[in-house]
Amino acid sequence: MSKTLLYEEVCRKIREMIKKGTFRPGDRLPSIRLLRQEMNISANTVMTAYGQLENEGLIEARPQSGFYVRPKVLSNGHQQAKNHLPKDITPNQVSLGDTTLQVMDTISNQMLLPLGIGMPNPDHLPIDKLNRMLASEAKRFRVQSISYTDTQGCLRLRSQIAKRSLLAGCSLGADDIIITNGCIEAITLALQCICRPGDTIAIGTPVHPAFLKFIQWMGLRILEIPSCLKEGISLDVLRYTIKQNHVSACIVIANFNNPLGSLMPEEKKQELVTLLEKNNIPLIEDDIYGDLAFGKSRPNAAKAYEQQGLVLHCSSFSKTLAPGFRVGWIAPGRFMQKLMRHKSLSNIATASPTQLAIAEFLINGGYDAYLRKVRRIYAKQIDSVIEAIGLYFPEGTQVNRPKGAYNLWVELPEGYDTYKLYEIALQNGISIAPGMIFTLEKNFTNFFRLNASYWSDRVEHALEVLGKTVKGCKV
Amino acid sequence: MSKTLLYEEVCRKIREMIKKGTFRPGDRLPSIRLLRQEMNISANTVMTAYGQLENEGLIEARPQSGFYVRPKVLSNGHQQAKNHLPKDITPNQVSLGDTTLQVMDTISNQMLLPLGIGMPNPDHLPIDKLNRMLASEAKRFRVQSISYTDTQGCLRLRSQIAKRSLLAGCSLGADDIIITNGCIEAITLALQCICRPGDTIAIGTPVHPAFLKFIQWMGLRILEIPSCLKEGISLDVLRYTIKQNHVSACIVIANFNNPLGSLMPEEKKQELVTLLEKNNIPLIEDDIYGDLAFGKSRPNAAKAYEQQGLVLHCSSFSKTLAPGFRVGWIAPGRFMQKLMRHKSLSNIATASPTQLAIAEFLINGGYDAYLRKVRRIYAKQIDSVIEAIGLYFPEGTQVNRPKGAYNLWVELPEGYDTYKLYEIALQNGISIAPGMIFTLEKNFTNFFRLNASYWSDRVEHALEVLGKTVKGCKV
Repeated sequence: MSKTLLYEEVCRKIREMIKKGTFRPGDRLPSIRLLRQEMNISANTVMTAYGQLENEGLIEARPQSGFYVRPKVLSNGHQQAKNHLPKDITPNQVSLGDTTLQVMDTISNQMLLPLGIGMPNPDHLPIDKLNRMLASEAKRFRVQSISYTDTQGCLRLRSQIAKRSLLAGCSLGADDIIITNGCIEAITLALQCICRPGDTIAIGTPVHPAFLKFIQWMGLRILEIPSCLKEGISLDVLRYTIKQNHVSACIVIANFNNPLGSLMPEEKKQELVTLLEKNNIPLIEDDIYGDLAFGKSRPNAAKAYEQQGLVLHCSSFSKTLAPGFRVGWIAPGRFMQKLMRHKSLSNIATASPTQLAIAEFLINGGYDAYLRKVRRIYAKQIDSVIEAIGLYFPEGTQVNRPKGAYNLWVELPEGYDTYKLYEIALQNGISIAPGMIFTLEKNFTNFFRLNASYWSDRVEHALEVLGKTVKGCKV
Repeated sequence: MSKTLLYEEVCRKIREMIKKGTFRPGDRLPSIRLLRQEMNISANTVMTAYGQLENEGLIEARPQSGFYVRPKVLSNGHQQAKNHLPKDITPNQVSLGDTTLQVMDTISNQMLLPLGIGMPNPDHLPIDKLNRMLASEAKRFRVQSISYTDTQGCLRLRSQIAKRSLLAGCSLGADDIIITNGCIEAITLALQCICRPGDTIAIGTPVHPAFLKFIQWMGLRILEIPSCLKEGISLDVLRYTIKQNHVSACIVIANFNNPLGSLMPEEKKQELVTLLEKNNIPLIEDDIYGDLAFGKSRPNAAKAYEQQGLVLHCSSFSKTLAPGFRVGWIAPGRFMQKLMRHKSLSNIATASPTQLAIAEFLINGGYDAYLRKVRRIYAKQIDSVIEAIGLYFPEGTQVNRPKGAYNLWVELPEGYDTYKLYEIALQNGISIAPGMIFTLEKNFTNFFRLNASYWSDRVEHALEVLGKTVKGCKV
């Protein structure tokens, strides 16, 4: 190598090697020190080259770790949205086929290697501490533990949730919150308070299957708004859509979207809330993954930007502490009264002992330290799964690297059918969540969702098996 | 007294004394031994006289205790129903006034002396044992305890409920059951699976307020079918009604009705189920009080008589073990599939730890021994409350003596307004449940429901206060 090797030359070479698959998505590139030595160039040249490749979106720096080949950023939907605004948008009557419903049920089967499941791996959850607190709190609050709480839920717990809302940019009081049986109940109560059968909902697509099921059950119509990894739901399309249609509510997962993994930039959240408030459309926000941010600070909730109490902020501890405790909440803004009545007549109140245990965990259980730990674990597991996909899946497979939680949205090259892959996986005792269950349209047929939190040697082997058999899924 | 005193003479005297108020409802009559001695008549004569008075419904025998003056059996509704079949029955659109809703909320306020509340007195509940089991089971099933159960609920618990269904005349399997967040959720899920807004429901009146609230919320129409203490819901009126109207479902509390306290005779339950099955109308049965029978054996559930899977049997442990655990169930017969889907999309599943604790209580907690104990307590408390009412309330006040549970349905003489009494009670820190919240009609304005399970000196004093002030409630 000559000393005159320019950084463009380094770039060209590495581009070439990435294209050929020498360096595959997820692979670590040689360190600056190594290249400097081996290529006999200055560290500055290497850094300039890597900077250029980073700008091109080909590689990415990971703090204290080096440079890695980046999976091409997915951009379905969003660009499309910007360039071709749909001419005529009509809401879909939701009608899920039997196959879709069956797939939705099967992916939660815990007898399978649960890569398609939504629940976090229990191995990372603070089981013993929580169970100890379940015991101690029941003893301490003996009568309260077996009696109904208020419909709003245990005050001790609501106070903690209210305090923590500051971290999400909100300023809730305990009285702004109703405890629910998980986040899904929060969202279904919200929908039932706001909408009547036949009403139209706007929702970012791909759509969380539980939402599709409930929307179908309620007899609502749905407008799937394309989303992209960088910005989440497309505000351009949403703006256009609500001009064309009477939209009764909008549902968004702004932070670490399920399944996309996308994180809406703060200014986009603000723009979303402003747009909806201007049109007097309630926003049902699912912020269940917000606490699982890999960055130093938690992103804001969309609720942080509301001016008019139109955001119904829904969340739960199902992804962070204990799915089976069924403790979630809603901060329904101006819909408080209606929500309270509806919660009360649906099931009176949420169970008391689990509320007491989680309140204690928030007060004395070291929730923040636990979060720091589990965020590191998920970030690492996501890296491992991405690397395995890079290793075993066909050229052209793309996967995002989310900035929080544990969901990966994998795109196989065009022409692959992930429903077929789902079937093959099933035969091998593995569950994956094929793209078809995230939409009513004919989209996402070459996508699937992976739960990275179960990463282990067995998972690596499973991905190897799937990677080998994926050829058979070409249509 | 002469030896020739006939039993008719004894009867006449006692009738007279009851009429005069010498012996008041709830008072114990002199023992047979005492009368025999004092009146110098044969034990046989006394027994014949008491038998005659019992036949007339004036007095009643209580095992191992003697004969008591009986509150006149209430018969609103039923006799009316038999004699004057309504000419034109049109279903009511449910629209509860603000006052009614406020009263419904207030009676559950636990800061008041809770005579209007639906929840049993926690003092009688096996708090410490349950809380110990909550701890031990969470430890034993550590991962299960924090993970989702199946949508159907914890198998261990369902097996126990299935086994116990034999005592209610059923033969359920674990797979016939879905665990719910209490009985109210079971019923609301059932209604949501069977009915669409605008549909008509037939229901025994007085109606449990929670049903009224939910029926209003769903936009259903309601037909209130009169009920009587002896036979529960009037089958004659029901038969007539379903000929005149398209009824989508019928809701009945056959065992120890809330608020009536009535117990439907077994042959009436059978007749009810046959009638509904013939007309292909699902029966939603609330059997939440069935386990609290004072007799030696538990009455059957209406479900015991079904031939076609049209009975949706709903119950819970909220009145027997732990209201705050929110563990109930539904055995929905042929609606299983639909119910499962709807439970799943409403809140995924019921919380795990409380299910595990109650399963353990049923297996190793001595549930039957506990039931025997608590039944004796409630029976005694009911006697005490009835006696206090006899003592402190105006002439003509009537109250039934239910054969199970702890609800008393008190009728003040015509012209009294129990909403006024409710207001006076409130000013004295006491809650009662006025008749107005149990109907959409202008009925039951001189009735109220009392929860006898809180009986204590303080309650006796409260009843004395209410008895003194009740004069002010005349309209």
